[in-house]
Amino acid sequence: MNVNGQHYRTIWLSPDNPQIVQVIDQRVLPHEFRIVDLMSAADAARALKDMTVRGAGLIGATAAYGVYLSALHAPQDSRAAFLQAVEADGERLKATRPTAINLAWAVNRMLAAIHSAEDIPAMLDMVRKTAQTIADEDAENGRRIGEHGAKIIAGLARKKHGDTVNILTHCNAGWLALVDYGSALAPIYAAFDQGIKVHVWVDETRPRNQGARLTAWELGQHGVPHSVIADNVGGHLMQHGLVDMVITGADRVTRTGDAANKIGTYLKALAAKDNSVPFYIALPSSTFDWTIRDGLTEIPIEQRGDDEVKYMDGIQADGTPATILIMPPDSPAVNYGFDVTPARLITALITERGVCPATEEGILGLYPEQS
Amino acid sequence: MNVNGQHYRTIWLSPDNPQIVQVIDQRVLPHEFRIVDLMSAADAARALKDMTVRGAGLIGATAAYGVYLSALHAPQDSRAAFLQAVEADGERLKATRPTAINLAWAVNRMLAAIHSAEDIPAMLDMVRKTAQTIADEDAENGRRIGEHGAKIIAGLARKKHGDTVNILTHCNAGWLALVDYGSALAPIYAAFDQGIKVHVWVDETRPRNQGARLTAWELGQHGVPHSVIADNVGGHLMQHGLVDMVITGADRVTRTGDAANKIGTYLKALAAKDNSVPFYIALPSSTFDWTIRDGLTEIPIEQRGDDEVKYMDGIQADGTPATILIMPPDSPAVNYGFDVTPARLITALITERGVCPATEEGILGLYPEQS
Repeated sequence: MNVNGQHYRTIWLSPDNPQIVQVIDQRVLPHEFRIVDLMSAADAARALKDMTVRGAGLIGATAAYGVYLSALHAPQDSRAAFLQAVEADGERLKATRPTAINLAWAVNRMLAAIHSAEDIPAMLDMVRKTAQTIADEDAENGRRIGEHGAKIIAGLARKKHGDTVNILTHCNAGWLALVDYGSALAPIYAAFDQGIKVHVWVDETRPRNQGARLTAWELGQHGVPHSVIADNVGGHLMQHGLVDMVITGADRVTRTGDAANKIGTYLKALAAKDNSVPFYIALPSSTFDWTIRDGLTEIPIEQRGDDEVKYMDGIQADGTPATILIMPPDSPAVNYGFDVTPARLITALITERGVCPATEEGILGLYPEQS
Repeated sequence: MNVNGQHYRTIWLSPDNPQIVQVIDQRVLPHEFRIVDLMSAADAARALKDMTVRGAGLIGATAAYGVYLSALHAPQDSRAAFLQAVEADGERLKATRPTAINLAWAVNRMLAAIHSAEDIPAMLDMVRKTAQTIADEDAENGRRIGEHGAKIIAGLARKKHGDTVNILTHCNAGWLALVDYGSALAPIYAAFDQGIKVHVWVDETRPRNQGARLTAWELGQHGVPHSVIADNVGGHLMQHGLVDMVITGADRVTRTGDAANKIGTYLKALAAKDNSVPFYIALPSSTFDWTIRDGLTEIPIEQRGDDEVKYMDGIQADGTPATILIMPPDSPAVNYGFDVTPARLITALITERGVCPATEEGILGLYPEQS
């Protein structure tokens, strides 16, 4: 997608030096657009952990490039030592974020690719190609999710006789969350580009404010009408007919359709159900965890530091950044990163292969190879 | 309740000059404890509007003292001119906040008291006494709500064999929201003082953060164990058995039990219902609007400025206050102050007269004079 008129993905190899991976620093948006160099697997792990990069698809792509960086610097005197070093980095990368399944999926795919190569030069060639393929596929998945989801928005627009379709989203599942296009926002961009009138209710998404910081910025860059709201507001809007559909992304979806996504998604799904508003989860297939059936008991939920709740950062009137304490210094805070929306609350899943019910039967209808 | 060991109410007449009303400035808590003088009805209206004071009970008491201040400065040469001036100020006070019914209730009660007096000296005497009575009754109502609600907490503690009772609350309905004791927090203080083990999940309550700023501060001052959480977290906690009950206050409750309260309350009520967690609304009877039956269509919902969403204030590491922009400057924000929780989601109401179902029959059982 475009930033000030120039096309960017969220991750790429430096055009000057293909041993350097570059990413957009998502911690300083929307106030600053900063590119960060990743030179090693440790850099990639740090970028994942401190959320320089975030979003299920981009987490996967960053982990893939992290394995690539690991391979570049692994000892090349023996196959065993090379593999040991890369596999150890793979484990370190996997440990950075527990909830998003794309992380383990990407690392495992990279390691399998390495093992399929004959010798170290072939392995080095393979990691670069595979990381690039993972990134390209993620972008292409986003584009297709957009195509499939835009049809749903077009249907709502027809039902409203061309009136604006109001869509609520939570957190950021835009192009910043994937390699390009996005998951939840991809259908919105596609519909907007087709000339359908849309307006997006952007949940602020405390405590890290990915909605207010990233989704609002993305939508603004693309010219999509939107309004930022506190996370508390969505239920009221739905009670009063001001939301036509909800679309969010996901960090892990079970084979039965339970969806882990940013904390607070479950509350919006409950409100959607209570007000007969359709609730969609958009995801690339790399976000399915085919090994589990019960999201509530089987998906690990990340807990992060209490500082994310106690402090807020932004810019002062003179443009200088500041971090402020927003509660009593001695009060404890607790910070869960995700919750699980049970499949029963989800109208349908929007994937790169099409739209399906959030049931095992519906999902396997699109992904019969997982039966 | 106590602040650093000294007893305070939220509003009182200055001991040095009974023509001055004093309140705690709730905009600068928890970082500063500041007392503000109100010298006129216009001062009271401004304090209501800019939320120097807030909370249903305190809004009522401040409006009552606002009418008192109006009377002090009204023309005293004719009864008609006096009444005209006071009634005009009464209308201005009522217009400051549309949702909390205590505001109109208190102003109307003050005006009725004035009309019942013979002459201007008697009216001046009457306004002072009536404002004091409204404040005293509000504090006493809080104390009684605490007694009734503590029995519910004690019951849960017995069921848990003395294990900690986890209570989730939204916004601030503590002693800062009434004249003393509070509504939602009164049962928690009473249970804590009885030696029952409690822990409070404090919803941050965006966009004005009354939970993180005021509820956490209050509970900390009283020594009650608590944790601040983002508003998004409550559903996840309930899914995992980490909430034994929810108690919130209310700004207006219909005679059928629908409850307007701080935006986001409805989402927590939905999550409580979905997880069989009891959900209580605590309120003094001055918060009932006996004239309406349908909360969703009949309770006006205040919309406030978008700056409350776009900017955040707090203190920097060196202790100096700062206001920061936390989203793209050009993105619009929308700010609804309240939502309505339908009676069907409310387990019971906790009032100064006892606990009743959130139904017209249940409510009239406690308030037969409203039949």
